[in-house]
Amino acid sequence: MITEIPGIEYQDRILKVQQELRDRGLDALIVHSTESEFANVLYLSNHWPVFETSGVIVPSEGDAILLIGAEAESFAQGRSKIKKIRKMFEYRESAEPEYPDIPLSSFSGIFDEISNGKGIKKLGLGDYTIMPLPVFDSIKKALGSEGQIIRADDIIANLRAIKSENEIEMIKKAHEISEVALDEILGKIKPGLTEKQVVGMILESLYRNGAECEAFPQYIFGGRKTRDAISRTTYRTLERNEMIQIDIGARYCGYSSSIGRPVVIGKMSPEMKKIVQFGLDVHLKTYEWVKEGVLASEVALKFIEYYKSNGMEEYYLYGPCHGTGIIEVEKPWLETSSNYYLKENMTFMADTFVTTRDYGLRWEDGFRVTRTGVEAFSDKWQEIIEL
Amino acid sequence: MITEIPGIEYQDRILKVQQELRDRGLDALIVHSTESEFANVLYLSNHWPVFETSGVIVPSEGDAILLIGAEAESFAQGRSKIKKIRKMFEYRESAEPEYPDIPLSSFSGIFDEISNGKGIKKLGLGDYTIMPLPVFDSIKKALGSEGQIIRADDIIANLRAIKSENEIEMIKKAHEISEVALDEILGKIKPGLTEKQVVGMILESLYRNGAECEAFPQYIFGGRKTRDAISRTTYRTLERNEMIQIDIGARYCGYSSSIGRPVVIGKMSPEMKKIVQFGLDVHLKTYEWVKEGVLASEVALKFIEYYKSNGMEEYYLYGPCHGTGIIEVEKPWLETSSNYYLKENMTFMADTFVTTRDYGLRWEDGFRVTRTGVEAFSDKWQEIIEL
Repeated sequence: MITEIPGIEYQDRILKVQQELRDRGLDALIVHSTESEFANVLYLSNHWPVFETSGVIVPSEGDAILLIGAEAESFAQGRSKIKKIRKMFEYRESAEPEYPDIPLSSFSGIFDEISNGKGIKKLGLGDYTIMPLPVFDSIKKALGSEGQIIRADDIIANLRAIKSENEIEMIKKAHEISEVALDEILGKIKPGLTEKQVVGMILESLYRNGAECEAFPQYIFGGRKTRDAISRTTYRTLERNEMIQIDIGARYCGYSSSIGRPVVIGKMSPEMKKIVQFGLDVHLKTYEWVKEGVLASEVALKFIEYYKSNGMEEYYLYGPCHGTGIIEVEKPWLETSSNYYLKENMTFMADTFVTTRDYGLRWEDGFRVTRTGVEAFSDKWQEIIEL
Repeated sequence: MITEIPGIEYQDRILKVQQELRDRGLDALIVHSTESEFANVLYLSNHWPVFETSGVIVPSEGDAILLIGAEAESFAQGRSKIKKIRKMFEYRESAEPEYPDIPLSSFSGIFDEISNGKGIKKLGLGDYTIMPLPVFDSIKKALGSEGQIIRADDIIANLRAIKSENEIEMIKKAHEISEVALDEILGKIKPGLTEKQVVGMILESLYRNGAECEAFPQYIFGGRKTRDAISRTTYRTLERNEMIQIDIGARYCGYSSSIGRPVVIGKMSPEMKKIVQFGLDVHLKTYEWVKEGVLASEVALKFIEYYKSNGMEEYYLYGPCHGTGIIEVEKPWLETSSNYYLKENMTFMADTFVTTRDYGLRWEDGFRVTRTGVEAFSDKWQEIIEL
């Protein structure tokens, strides 16, 4: 079992980006990362900023450069697979420190360096959705009136969508750690604990069992709050016989997991049990509809049709799957508008959300697409859970 | 002891923003938040996005509106103090789901709504440093050729810089929780534990003792890695007699804390002890230089001068303080270039970093500026710590 993505795989990623840049006639690609949206810089360099932001610029030929803020030099040297590192004002903290005593690089200088003084004419923009104005404005200024910025998010998105064997190992390991925590927590939760206290117990378990950190703010909600498709925990205490939603997600070596289970401490009413069982049924049905070569939207249409034919249409919010990998939710989504074909080693979360007027519930497990169907990354506690 | 900022204080914040908008001739202010940079939306609404992003638009008169992504409606209804909430495409996840079945609002519609159909001519931009292109581009398009976007980060930054009594209560409580965790962890750490395992122990303590969550990724590093001014933990094990840096930070009701201590399990060498003691001396000196009415840069200049006069100049990286509040590091910084006067109830972290060739160390504690000096938020373990 490897414990990190080997350096050679990072080099291979950059070579693939460079080939694509040359095919598209782009001089370079720039990607961006923040503390919470860090996928592309992590994918190319293994760096993950904290407090500050960061970027990677990949020229069509030659060495990529990691771009960081003023305080992160020894941190970045310790973990980046890209050895050229430059400190820049644009990647400072949002509190806008001025660092009067620290010398910094500029985009003009970086563009000169990667083009051997020829200048950058066509720059691919790899992170439109999260690119902040200070970085973008500096880039535009440094490119000058002759330079063009061209959206190219798909270059890395396409690479990231198909996972390597090593990436799949990491995602599996993350799910294993989450399953252990789920087992432990189901043995420990009881009425009267606050949601926050349970989060502390989950995190203690994840880190003790080898997690790098959490993959997202852990979910543990009771009662009406289980209707929130996304949410944050509160100081509310868990009660007997109410719906409790648990989503546990470890991150391991840069890769995410999530296991979602609806749970009751006590007994479910017959109506609640029926709806929870329906959720599990459609969750497992999704696996049957997925395999390499299937048009993604067809899976989503079958999913909605299953709600309809079971009289559960009013309880549908969205679904049935989203891509997963470095970020727990990443491209591609799998929706009724998804006009692409599933490929082997795409990885998704089957994210089955059922929301009634009084409570919601989610079954969630990761899987990879295979030639014949799916390989699920977690399958424990796929049953009516009454503790 | 209050356990949350009262709703009336949120209303007051919005009224102050509106007064400032009218004074500046602006029609509205828009602020932005992400999962990791969430201060201004939290400050105005108490909402804190997860997975998605969000915004708040405050018209110069009338109701503010919280802008969220497609999945966050019941989540936002549960915590936002702003009751008008609109779901928008621009605040969706970076994975770019299309949500073909969920109806969404547009900036044109929002601008019409807040201006009673008169249109927005001058829009203040409250979050230049983190504003992402998709939101900005949509705003520009909706404003049309007559609309102007004017940077106005300082409107909320100025409000946030001076804390209310309630805010100070929250920051103190966050420090109390961190001090309890520090006590517990100093009793538990031992050689052979990985940094990650200790993080799990810290988090378990923080949540058990009432934290909302961590204020930043907890720091626990040993050996050379203590030289990182900012960093992330690894799987390295802690060793006897090496420098170990611990920074513990709870968040409580939206407000941050941080307590940093250099620790050795075993014995410090005389040289190490000397440098650690120097760090503590200059850390506590900082308190003596601070009080209402002092020019901020003067504190920073005295801080550097103290390094110089003790022959420690080569160990200086930056300092001595940064603002703190909702975000553990927020405006204003206190640097040699800081051309403002300290005011009562500004809150800072005294963040004293000393970095040698082989290890670094940080003393960190929060404080508020008073008319006569400072009120420190934590003071436990301000001594040579050999466990």
